[in-house]
Amino acid sequence: MISKERLAAHLEAVRRESPLVHNITNYVAMNNSANALLAIGASPVMAHWKAEMEEMTSIASALVLNIGTLDAEWIEGMLAAGKAARQRGVPIVLDPVGAGATSWRTRTAWDIIEQCKPTIIRGNGSEIMALVNADVRSKGVDSTASSDDALEAAQVLAQRTGAVVVISGSTDYITDGTRTETIANGAPIMTAVTGMGCTASAVVGAFVATGEDALESAAHAMAVMGVAGQRAAAVAKGSGSMQVAFLDELYNLTGEVLIGEVKQ
Amino acid sequence: MISKERLAAHLEAVRRESPLVHNITNYVAMNNSANALLAIGASPVMAHWKAEMEEMTSIASALVLNIGTLDAEWIEGMLAAGKAARQRGVPIVLDPVGAGATSWRTRTAWDIIEQCKPTIIRGNGSEIMALVNADVRSKGVDSTASSDDALEAAQVLAQRTGAVVVISGSTDYITDGTRTETIANGAPIMTAVTGMGCTASAVVGAFVATGEDALESAAHAMAVMGVAGQRAAAVAKGSGSMQVAFLDELYNLTGEVLIGEVKQ
Amino acid sequence: MISKERLAAHLEAVRRESPLVHNITNYVAMNNSANALLAIGASPVMAHWKAEMEEMTSIASALVLNIGTLDAEWIEGMLAAGKAARQRGVPIVLDPVGAGATSWRTRTAWDIIEQCKPTIIRGNGSEIMALVNADVRSKGVDSTASSDDALEAAQVLAQRTGAVVVISGSTDYITDGTRTETIANGAPIMTAVTGMGCTASAVVGAFVATGEDALESAAHAMAVMGVAGQRAAAVAKGSGSMQVAFLDELYNLTGEVLIGEVKQ
Repeated sequence: MISKERLAAHLEAVRRESPLVHNITNYVAMNNSANALLAIGASPVMAHWKAEMEEMTSIASALVLNIGTLDAEWIEGMLAAGKAARQRGVPIVLDPVGAGATSWRTRTAWDIIEQCKPTIIRGNGSEIMALVNADVRSKGVDSTASSDDALEAAQVLAQRTGAVVVISGSTDYITDGTRTETIANGAPIMTAVTGMGCTASAVVGAFVATGEDALESAAHAMAVMGVAGQRAAAVAKGSGSMQVAFLDELYNLTGEVLIGEVKQ
Repeated sequence: MISKERLAAHLEAVRRESPLVHNITNYVAMNNSANALLAIGASPVMAHWKAEMEEMTSIASALVLNIGTLDAEWIEGMLAAGKAARQRGVPIVLDPVGAGATSWRTRTAWDIIEQCKPTIIRGNGSEIMALVNADVRSKGVDSTASSDDALEAAQVLAQRTGAVVVISGSTDYITDGTRTETIANGAPIMTAVTGMGCTASAVVGAFVATGEDALESAAHAMAVMGVAGQRAAAVAKGSGSMQVAFLDELYNLTGEVLIGEVKQ
Repeated sequence: MISKERLAAHLEAVRRESPLVHNITNYVAMNNSANALLAIGASPVMAHWKAEMEEMTSIASALVLNIGTLDAEWIEGMLAAGKAARQRGVPIVLDPVGAGATSWRTRTAWDIIEQCKPTIIRGNGSEIMALVNADVRSKGVDSTASSDDALEAAQVLAQRTGAVVVISGSTDYITDGTRTETIANGAPIMTAVTGMGCTASAVVGAFVATGEDALESAAHAMAVMGVAGQRAAAVAKGSGSMQVAFLDELYNLTGEVLIGEVKQ
């Protein structure tokens, strides 16, 4: 169980410190991720060109690598940024979008894991299972496995990689292979908004940039996503207004609301 | 005239079967297209890298090729995906964005037509006319021709290519060169939201993935776009809320509403 | 002081003439920029491939170059478009996103300035200062300097380059190095929406395409941004609805409202 008081304090720390979160993410979710980071008070930067990775990483407080729309050049950029971040001790979040859908995605996720040693890996059930078991094939980028089904795979992946592993789903699991936290907020309509998982990874970046412990930071970020998501779902009229309301809720979220609404 | 009952049933089929629609589309419309596909219950994936086209196509139920922000590498990806889809019998939708605005766009559209044999080509009046008559020059990506003016060109293009051709406009025309269906829904404010045509092509992909007949499927998709669009226009306060309301309407759209509001 | 009547008339001219604004801009802000241009009645086109720059520029009324997510190929495209535009007398707006954050951004901005001679350069305080003083380092893409602090740098930059320089901030400054206009509209929540500065540059493009004088056109564009922004802020519930309301306000903005609300 995470401390609700520390959760609330961590949100305030993000707003106060406004960490620079460097994202190399997919084309679909860039706008959403940047807006979510701004809404919680962080400072997003999107930059992918290998030539400026060293310098960009030197001013960043966290690096988020997301393989959602990968190609050869972007992989080069991600590896360059990831290695520079690792050397400087900048925490790295990996989002293995579509791992299991194509072998290049699975392989690229593993290349990043091996060469950059991410602090946190966040995916949906199918993606996390595909990273552990090469026989699992995803259907595109949406999960066909529940987060419950994937928990064991997440624990194995955490032990194998040394990363904290986060599975998003109706219940979110956050595990380092030994200790496992759960967040039971959120709403089904979140899956009808594109880039919601990618946004979660970006928010995890802002929390790990300002937190003391990777497992706790990831749980805090998922709590923020889930509470904002369920509050937005309560007022949304459909998936379009859901996206808008979600940003509004993130923007207005306070520690007090988090304490009152987080479910573990 | 399309059957209203079959239209309603087709929307339910999309929601039930949740077809994986593989999109290689432009940077501007990716987020819109993905959200629209999720809103109607389909499963979008965006992937453009040549190296993973064979595998991605093998799990997709439709492929949408959109040349809105083309360059040499993306053209390679599109042709690779298109050829793989053609071999597997996966239906292809081509959106020739800006055909006629530059010779590379016109040429690329024709390269895709010749090498990939798209099932459906959807564009605005200017784009369709430019594909048939090399002397027509578009003004950027917005149409300077009405859909009525372009109907004859659409029929010629359909006969020449074997594709069903769709022209979006105040009246939508869907033709295989012999039979022509019309959809008279929609609202003028739709042209003030970027990527609305691209979104239509993506939705056509979801319908052709789950339909029996390409002409009918395209007409169904345009009916869904038009009905959602005019319902959204009735509540929108401007082009910003139009985009939001449009997704909400797509998300909430039912067969019953379609039957009541479609105009042919 | 700009004339309020000429400001109002210029907005009407944009709506009437619907200038084609060619944008080579970053992935994050493409959708926002296109929607903002449509909302004020302009016609956006996004195209970055070197091979089609000559042709695209030949039909454009303004070119907007934004280095927000730069890489080698996009720089090539920008320089090709910029040189073609310069030769044809098409006005160019440069948005030096993140100048000072990495040396590649500062250098690329200067390459564009030297090779393409932009008509207008629009940035935030940090970016403008970094272009003048190589010792200034930005924190990512958000400004750490106020627009007031940067005014002197803007005047120096204008004199050195021959461009009109615009600094966005709580007060916007527009200067040719000698004459300086101010716009005091806008709202703090605009900084919580990603791509708002990039959108300003795109809107500047539409106004310089249809205006008589670069300094005046830039001031008109900033007035439109600021008035729409503060009207949107008055109804927004957070940063999500801010983005939506901003487009609605742009869409509905009239000369009369501008005359009543612009503050200099």
